[in-house]
Amino acid sequence: MAPEVVKIRFSIFYEHQLPRPWSDEAEERLYRDALEQVEIADRVGFDHVWAVEHHFLEEYSHSSAPEVFLAAASQRTRRIRLGHGIVQLPPPVNHPARVAERVAALDLVSGGRVDFGTGEASSMAELGGFGVPREEKRAMWRDAMDAITRMFVEEPFAGWDSPYLRMPPRNVIPKPVQKPHPPLWVACSRRETIHFAARNGIGALSFSFAEPEDAGVWVDEYYRLLNSEECVPAGFAVNPGVAVVLPMMCHEDEATAIERGIDGAHFFGFALAHYYGTSPHEPGRTSIWDDFVRHREERGYSRGIVGAVDAPLSVRITEGGIGSLRGAVGTPAQVAELVRRYEAVGVDQVIFVLQAGPNRHDHVCESLELVGEQVIPRFAEGREERERARAERLAPAVEAALARREPPRERAAPYRIDETAELARARRRRAPARDLRTAARTAVRARGRHALARLVAGRSDDRLERGFGPAAQRVFFAGMVRAFDPGMAMGFEGELEFRLRRGEEETPWTIEIRDGRAHVRPERARRPVVGIRIGAADFLRLLAGERQAPALALDGRLEIDGDVAFAPRIGEMFGGVSPY
Amino acid sequence: MAPEVVKIRFSIFYEHQLPRPWSDEAEERLYRDALEQVEIADRVGFDHVWAVEHHFLEEYSHSSAPEVFLAAASQRTRRIRLGHGIVQLPPPVNHPARVAERVAALDLVSGGRVDFGTGEASSMAELGGFGVPREEKRAMWRDAMDAITRMFVEEPFAGWDSPYLRMPPRNVIPKPVQKPHPPLWVACSRRETIHFAARNGIGALSFSFAEPEDAGVWVDEYYRLLNSEECVPAGFAVNPGVAVVLPMMCHEDEATAIERGIDGAHFFGFALAHYYGTSPHEPGRTSIWDDFVRHREERGYSRGIVGAVDAPLSVRITEGGIGSLRGAVGTPAQVAELVRRYEAVGVDQVIFVLQAGPNRHDHVCESLELVGEQVIPRFAEGREERERARAERLAPAVEAALARREPPRERAAPYRIDETAELARARRRRAPARDLRTAARTAVRARGRHALARLVAGRSDDRLERGFGPAAQRVFFAGMVRAFDPGMAMGFEGELEFRLRRGEEETPWTIEIRDGRAHVRPERARRPVVGIRIGAADFLRLLAGERQAPALALDGRLEIDGDVAFAPRIGEMFGGVSPY
Repeated sequence: MAPEVVKIRFSIFYEHQLPRPWSDEAEERLYRDALEQVEIADRVGFDHVWAVEHHFLEEYSHSSAPEVFLAAASQRTRRIRLGHGIVQLPPPVNHPARVAERVAALDLVSGGRVDFGTGEASSMAELGGFGVPREEKRAMWRDAMDAITRMFVEEPFAGWDSPYLRMPPRNVIPKPVQKPHPPLWVACSRRETIHFAARNGIGALSFSFAEPEDAGVWVDEYYRLLNSEECVPAGFAVNPGVAVVLPMMCHEDEATAIERGIDGAHFFGFALAHYYGTSPHEPGRTSIWDDFVRHREERGYSRGIVGAVDAPLSVRITEGGIGSLRGAVGTPAQVAELVRRYEAVGVDQVIFVLQAGPNRHDHVCESLELVGEQVIPRFAEGREERERARAERLAPAVEAALARREPPRERAAPYRIDETAELARARRRRAPARDLRTAARTAVRARGRHALARLVAGRSDDRLERGFGPAAQRVFFAGMVRAFDPGMAMGFEGELEFRLRRGEEETPWTIEIRDGRAHVRPERARRPVVGIRIGAADFLRLLAGERQAPALALDGRLEIDGDVAFAPRIGEMFGGVSPY
Repeated sequence: MAPEVVKIRFSIFYEHQLPRPWSDEAEERLYRDALEQVEIADRVGFDHVWAVEHHFLEEYSHSSAPEVFLAAASQRTRRIRLGHGIVQLPPPVNHPARVAERVAALDLVSGGRVDFGTGEASSMAELGGFGVPREEKRAMWRDAMDAITRMFVEEPFAGWDSPYLRMPPRNVIPKPVQKPHPPLWVACSRRETIHFAARNGIGALSFSFAEPEDAGVWVDEYYRLLNSEECVPAGFAVNPGVAVVLPMMCHEDEATAIERGIDGAHFFGFALAHYYGTSPHEPGRTSIWDDFVRHREERGYSRGIVGAVDAPLSVRITEGGIGSLRGAVGTPAQVAELVRRYEAVGVDQVIFVLQAGPNRHDHVCESLELVGEQVIPRFAEGREERERARAERLAPAVEAALARREPPRERAAPYRIDETAELARARRRRAPARDLRTAARTAVRARGRHALARLVAGRSDDRLERGFGPAAQRVFFAGMVRAFDPGMAMGFEGELEFRLRRGEEETPWTIEIRDGRAHVRPERARRPVVGIRIGAADFLRLLAGERQAPALALDGRLEIDGDVAFAPRIGEMFGGVSPY
C-alpha cells in the first residue's frame, strides 16, 4: 500500500531538561526561556508545541505540570497547537476527571488548540513513586481513556465502576471547545505501540528514533491497521497521524550546529537511558550530568564520532550506534533533506527537541528562526489540499471504525446525587469474584476484562493454578467460543491449540473455527494453525492484560508453534484484551 | 487587643459561574472574558486574583482546573498575585505530589506570584463524586498539607506513609520560586475554621459574608491565636492574614449598580445554598437558574428588598436576611466606605466577586475600572510602611511558632529507587492495628493520629466499644498522660474528668494536672474544671479527628460540664488532633 503522504508538519517538544548543578534561578529561567521559544515557534510557522508530563525525573525532565506550561503558552501564541505529549493516564497519578477537566480548560483558554496525547508512564521512578504496577498500566490506560473520552461527550458522564475507577454519574465540566474532543495521541516508545495506536484510531507519537526508511515500514503498518476492521477507536473521533521525535539544532555552518546541539542530543539519550534502564538513582543526590561527563565516551556518546559530513543526503539520525543520537542537528539544507525523507514515507509530523541538556537558549531561538525561514516554507505548498484529500480517502474507514465503537451512554432513569449512598458504594470493599468458574464465565463478556483483571490481580500464581483446573478451563473455553467475533477473525478458518500447564500436568484444548463459528474440544488439535503452550496462571494473566506475550516468551514461559504472527490476534478474536 | 490594622488589599475572585441555558460557545466566552477582566484588574491596581477549584458544580462553578486558568492569567498580567482559592487537598481528588508540582510550576511561570490556598471540599457532589468520606476530609487536609509543604522544601522529599498517602522518597520538582514556598491560606466557610487557620499559622479566606463589625471579632481571635503558643505552623513559613469575600458591582449611580449586580449576587447565594444544602440535584438535568427565577422571591432573594439607600454608611452587606446578599454593590463611595470598615477591624484583604450569575462582562470591566480609579487609590498611602511595621510586630511570635514545627527531614542513609520493593510496599494491604491496646499505646505519640485514624476508620461503633473496655482505656489514658505537653496547657492546673459510656456501663477517669505534670486515676474527680461524658466509640473518633465535638454535642452524644471554652483544647494538650 502506498504511504498516506501528506505535507509534513513541524513541531517542538519540551522535557524541560536541567543538568546539574542547579543555580537558585535555574528552574525559573528554564520555564521563562521555553515560553519565549514557543512564542518564536508560533511566529515562524511551527504547528505544534508538545510538553511531556514526567514526575521526579530530575535533570531529564522538570515538566511535571505541563497543563500549567501549556496554559501559559496559550496566551503567548496565536495559532500554534498545544500538545500534551503526554498526560499520564494511570488513575493513581491523575484522577480521570481531573484529566478531562484540565484538558477541557486548556482547550477553552487556547480557543480549541489542544492535542491530547496520552501514555502509561514507564520509568521506575514514576511507577514506584505513584504505586502503579507495571503489569497493570496498560489496563489502566484503556480504562482511563474510555472514561475520559466519555466525560468529554456524555452529559452527564454516566458513571464508572472498574478496578481502577469508581465514580457516580456527574456532569464533568467544562467541556472542550473541539468536538467531540481534542485529537487523541498515544506515546509509542516501542514499535508495538504504533500498532496499538492504529487499532485505537489515534495518533502515534513515536519516540524510538528510527531512520526515515525504517519509520516508513511502521507508517504503512499503522495505516493498514487503521483502515482495517481491527481499528476500534478509543475516542469518539479518529485522529490519524504518525509523528516522530528528533533532537535538532540548526545553523548555516554544519560544524557550528553540531557544536551547539550535540551535547544536548547526547545528554537527552544518556539521561533517557539512565531513567529507563537499570542505573541506580538516589533522589536528590545522583548527578546524571556528572555521570554523563565522566562516562559519555565509553557509553557511545562521544563527541568525536559526530562530525560534519557536508553532504545533506548522508546525515543519519544516529551516528556510530544508537547511543550517539544526532537527529536533525545540521544545516538548514540537511534538516530539510531529513524531513523530506520522513515526509516521503508518510510521517505526518516531525517533532524537534531543541531544549535538551546544556543547549543554550539563544542557540535554540536562532535555530527556530532559521528553520522557520529556510526549512518550513519548503513544505507548506499545497498542504491543505493534500490533507483534505487524505481525509476524504480515509473517511469511509473512519466512519466504519466509529460504528464499531460503543456510543456515548444516555441514562434511562434520572439520577440524583446522594452522598451517603455514593460513599457507601465507594467504601464497599471490592468483592473478589466468588469463584474461578463464575469469573471465567463472565470474564470474556463485553466488559469482562475488568472481572478478569480483578480476579488475577489479587491472587498468587499458585492459587490461580489450583483453581483453574480442567473443569474451570472448560467453562472458560466455552465462554471464549461464545464470545467469538467472526469480524475479528477476518475469514480465518482452522484449529487453534492450547496446552495449559499446571505443575507437571498439561491439559489440551482445541478451538476450531469453521464457517464463521467456533467450537471447542478438550483434546489436542489435528493440524493446528497455531499452538500455544503456557502455564495456566500465565494464560489468565495474559488474557487479563496483566502480562505481555513477548515478555513471557522471552522468559520461556510461553511457547508458540505455527503461525507466530497470528497468535497476537487470538485474544481479540475472542473478545479478550489485546496482548499489545 | 487592638486589631492588627494594615492598609487593606483588593482582590477579585472567580467561580466561573454559568447559569443555564448554555450556548455552544458559552464556556469559551466565560474563560476569555475572565482573562480580559484579570488583565484590567492587574492594570488598575488589584492585588490578587483568586480562582476556586470546584468539580461537577454545574452553573455554580465551571472552574475545575484553576491551575490552567491562573497559568493563562500569568501571561496576561505583570504584578497581580495569582491565588488558588482553593486547591482541594484530599488525595482522592488530587495526588499531593501533583499539587506540589502544579503550584511550583505556576510559581515559575508567574515569577513567584502564587498564593496557595487550600481546602477540604465540602459539597455532596464533590465528596460523593471522588469518594471522600466527610468525616475524614479534615484528616486528609492535615496529612496532605504536611506532605505537600515538605515536598516544596525537602530535597528529596523523604517519603510518606499515612492512611491517605504512601510515597517513597523522591525529589518532587520543580521547586517554587518563593522560598520556602508560596504563602498558605485555607478556605473558611465556618467561623471555627478561622481559629483553625490561626492555629496553623496560615491566612484565612473567609466565605461567611460577615458584616465588618462581626468580622472584627474573628480577626481579633485570629491574631490572638496566631500570637499564642497554640500556633504550630502547617507550613515552613507563617502567612498572617484574614481576607473576606464579597459580591461587588460598582457604578456612579447606586440604582444602576444594583440593577447590574444584584442578580449575580443573589444567584451566587442561591446556587451556593443549592449545592451545600439539601436541594436534589440531577447531573446534566437540573437547572438552578430556572429554579432561581421561579423561587427567588419566596426564598428571600427578592430584587425588591434591595434598594438604593443613597447613604454610604447605611449599606449592609446582607439586606433583609442572609439570603439577600448585597455585598459591595453600590457607588464608589459606598464601596470605599464598606472597605474602610473592614480595614478598621483589621481585615487584610477584600475579595470581590463580580463574575457571578448573569452579570455582564462589560459591567464587570466598567466596575473594575471604576474601583481602580476611585476606590483603590484611597487605600494605598503608607501601605508598605504599615505592612512592614506589622511584620516586625509579629516577627517574634512567628519565629516562636516556627520553632514549634517539625523541621524538614534529612535522610540519614542514602535511598535508591527500587520499583519492585516500592510496589510491594504499595500493594501490601494496610495491616489493621493488631489490637486496641497496642493502637491506643501508639495513638497518642507524635505521629499517632495516623494509627488512631486507621484504627477507627475501618471499625463499627459496636466493635470499637467492645474492644475499648476499661483495660484498653487504661492504656490509652496512660498514653495521654505521657504525651501531655505542658506548653499547650499554658499554666493550667486542675482536674479533667472523663466518663466513657459503653452501653449501660460508664467508666470514670480523672486526669490531674499539677506542677506541669499530668497524672491519671480510674475514678471520678473531686473538683473537675471540665467534665466530659461521651460514648467510648465517639471518644476515639473525636480524638482521631473523625468526628467533631460541636456535632456530637448537638446530637446529644457529648456532654460537657464546667468550663466549656476549655474543652476544645484538651485534645491538643495531649498530643491529639484538634477538634477544629
